[in-house]
Amino acid sequence: MEETFVIHGDLLWSDEDRELLMLEDGYLLVEEGRCAGVFPTLPESLSELPLEDYSHCLVLPGMTDLHTHASQYGIRGLGLDEELLVWLKKYTFPEEARFSDLSYAKRMYTAFTEDLLHGWTTRAVIFATLHTESTLLLMDLLEKSGLVTCVGRVNMNRDGGENLCESDAETALRDTEEWLDRCKGRYTNTTPIITPRFIPSCTDDLMKGLSEIAEKYGLRLQSHLSENPGEIELVKKLVPAAASYGAAYEDFGSLLNPETPAVMAHCVYSDEAEEALIMKHGTYIAHCPGSNMNIASGIAPAARFLRDGAHIGLGTDIGGGSTLALPVTMKEAMQSSCLYWRLCDSNVKPLSFAETFYMATLGGGSYFGKVGSFLKGYEADAVVIDDTDTRNGQALSLLERLERSVYTPSACRVSAKYVRGRRLNLS
Amino acid sequence: MEETFVIHGDLLWSDEDRELLMLEDGYLLVEEGRCAGVFPTLPESLSELPLEDYSHCLVLPGMTDLHTHASQYGIRGLGLDEELLVWLKKYTFPEEARFSDLSYAKRMYTAFTEDLLHGWTTRAVIFATLHTESTLLLMDLLEKSGLVTCVGRVNMNRDGGENLCESDAETALRDTEEWLDRCKGRYTNTTPIITPRFIPSCTDDLMKGLSEIAEKYGLRLQSHLSENPGEIELVKKLVPAAASYGAAYEDFGSLLNPETPAVMAHCVYSDEAEEALIMKHGTYIAHCPGSNMNIASGIAPAARFLRDGAHIGLGTDIGGGSTLALPVTMKEAMQSSCLYWRLCDSNVKPLSFAETFYMATLGGGSYFGKVGSFLKGYEADAVVIDDTDTRNGQALSLLERLERSVYTPSACRVSAKYVRGRRLNLS
Repeated sequence: MEETFVIHGDLLWSDEDRELLMLEDGYLLVEEGRCAGVFPTLPESLSELPLEDYSHCLVLPGMTDLHTHASQYGIRGLGLDEELLVWLKKYTFPEEARFSDLSYAKRMYTAFTEDLLHGWTTRAVIFATLHTESTLLLMDLLEKSGLVTCVGRVNMNRDGGENLCESDAETALRDTEEWLDRCKGRYTNTTPIITPRFIPSCTDDLMKGLSEIAEKYGLRLQSHLSENPGEIELVKKLVPAAASYGAAYEDFGSLLNPETPAVMAHCVYSDEAEEALIMKHGTYIAHCPGSNMNIASGIAPAARFLRDGAHIGLGTDIGGGSTLALPVTMKEAMQSSCLYWRLCDSNVKPLSFAETFYMATLGGGSYFGKVGSFLKGYEADAVVIDDTDTRNGQALSLLERLERSVYTPSACRVSAKYVRGRRLNLS
Repeated sequence: MEETFVIHGDLLWSDEDRELLMLEDGYLLVEEGRCAGVFPTLPESLSELPLEDYSHCLVLPGMTDLHTHASQYGIRGLGLDEELLVWLKKYTFPEEARFSDLSYAKRMYTAFTEDLLHGWTTRAVIFATLHTESTLLLMDLLEKSGLVTCVGRVNMNRDGGENLCESDAETALRDTEEWLDRCKGRYTNTTPIITPRFIPSCTDDLMKGLSEIAEKYGLRLQSHLSENPGEIELVKKLVPAAASYGAAYEDFGSLLNPETPAVMAHCVYSDEAEEALIMKHGTYIAHCPGSNMNIASGIAPAARFLRDGAHIGLGTDIGGGSTLALPVTMKEAMQSSCLYWRLCDSNVKPLSFAETFYMATLGGGSYFGKVGSFLKGYEADAVVIDDTDTRNGQALSLLERLERSVYTPSACRVSAKYVRGRRLNLS
């Protein structure tokens, strides 16, 4: 791949004010892995550059999946008429225990990586399991794919059920550091992320120790927050001194700081105090509307978070969510925001399409830096969507073609993907 | 096709008590278009019959789509950040007006019919538009597909916007009878259904006249009921004498009787009085959860209706819904029932998977008679699903394979379909 080249197609991207910008039949200049301008006609000065021509295709910024469990790919869609805490014990924990078997891990992590590679996603923040070997295997596969990811070896030393529990905090912390040592120098696109499963799975000393490791290594941290009323009650009992679930994380040091922000999945029941605390630490909210509906958690006030200026992106949350397809998550975000407005708070207007697209691209992407837009200086992540087969009766506007594609992604073909200006091998 | 034959595969079907029955590696005997028994091993007496072998595929009863608009296939997924009454004026009515152009109608109705044919659906209840010629064109295409459908030429003589309004009730009624005359003797699998769009679109005399035509011809009727608060307010103003929206239909004679039950789409805001009235007339509720979320209508208490013994099935409601795929509607039914339980009424437990499967098959199918099950005497509608590519990590149970397929339908292939024992041509 040349370092400087031009992508030609129907370009759509968000700006930092969450406006959706469009340029039909436009040209995106890529220089050394970054976007260097969009042009309605190709300037004479660029006419000698290599041209990647996707006429009549949609060219979008690659999307970011802020929260998903690679280790639950094998149980997606199963048992989704159960609620969170039951579902975890019945489906999730037994499935994750299988990842002590490297050949099983290879099979499922390969399927996960291939499907992620062929979708609209270019960046993802991922849970593995507590098994070091299979976590490294997943990281190797992701690195080879060319996607950019954060991957967490999961910590849990309490209540995980048979064969899925670390013995004690001290061992867990030592194993975590050993895993970090083994990651060192091994990856370009794959970063380890500290991953306490959630407070119910981790004792206080493990929580504190993990925050210390994150600080020591300059790493980030991911976990779950305020997903389900039963879970929140449980946290109240486990950490009675904390003012809220979010405050418990803060007390343990898990929220870190805005330079290395944590990602917290869900925040369905985060009230304004918890939201303020999240914003103070620059924490990223991974909004997972499909999962929240599937396992009856509720609806996170995503539109409120977004408009308040919180960092928020979308998460597919396999296996509470049933697909890695972020366009489906976009649909679910819009659907659940409509219901939130209708049933919960008529002051919070439903998410617009532009706001939802922003969350899927720049909103989540900004967790990785200047990512998720075609604005100048952003890393050149792009996904090329061939929407020829979406059966449009009459000529659609560019915006309508994007809407149609998001609502019927299985009628579309991802015909090319770029990450940091490098074309991925989709064959 | 032989009149008597055997289908071999992994069979799943609902019984009339909404239990999900399963027979792995089983045999379904089809005699003269009807199911005549299922067998765990092929009885000696049947061993000479032709065998349609789908080993390792899921074989399900064909699904019924109780409510969809063929004429809105061209706008699916567009403008779904608008609410019902705005969306109708901005997107729906202008699109439907295009169906005065037969070449446009042919293009879109062909796309609609092909996509319906290749999905999990074998029966459907469909809105066309107010144009007689293009409605007949749609009926011809559907007849040729082998699917069994009811198709309505839409009546609307009020407030349809430019180029989409019948001139007056008298003309509308005359045109409707002319359409019915032209249908006579033309179809085996395609039945005309009387279709007042909804009360806001039809004057009182048109509503009454349409009920009379339905009675005169022994036909059924379809419309929309209690979808959106704004719409309900409007009906209150338009028909001030009626006790409720449903009662207005009853007063106009639209609900007919249990022998020729009406289909009413949505019933999001049907309270217990309206529910009782619906049940008295044997009316079918077309539950359209995707559409109800997309255009911010709300959540219908589908689980309550079902458990109360009302007739209820699923509708994709193109273009409020964005896909003809009934498995997606099943997912949305489960998702929205979880939210109904969580946010609206904790006495109404979420739909189980088995209940949802029942609605998609027997629940809606019973509108067409003995349809939607492999029980003895049911018409032999079946859909064969190849789920090889759903990436199962370990051996799944038969139920889990069905769940996985419903949640990831785009990973499945519909490899054969039967309607009334006749194999459809999917090529």
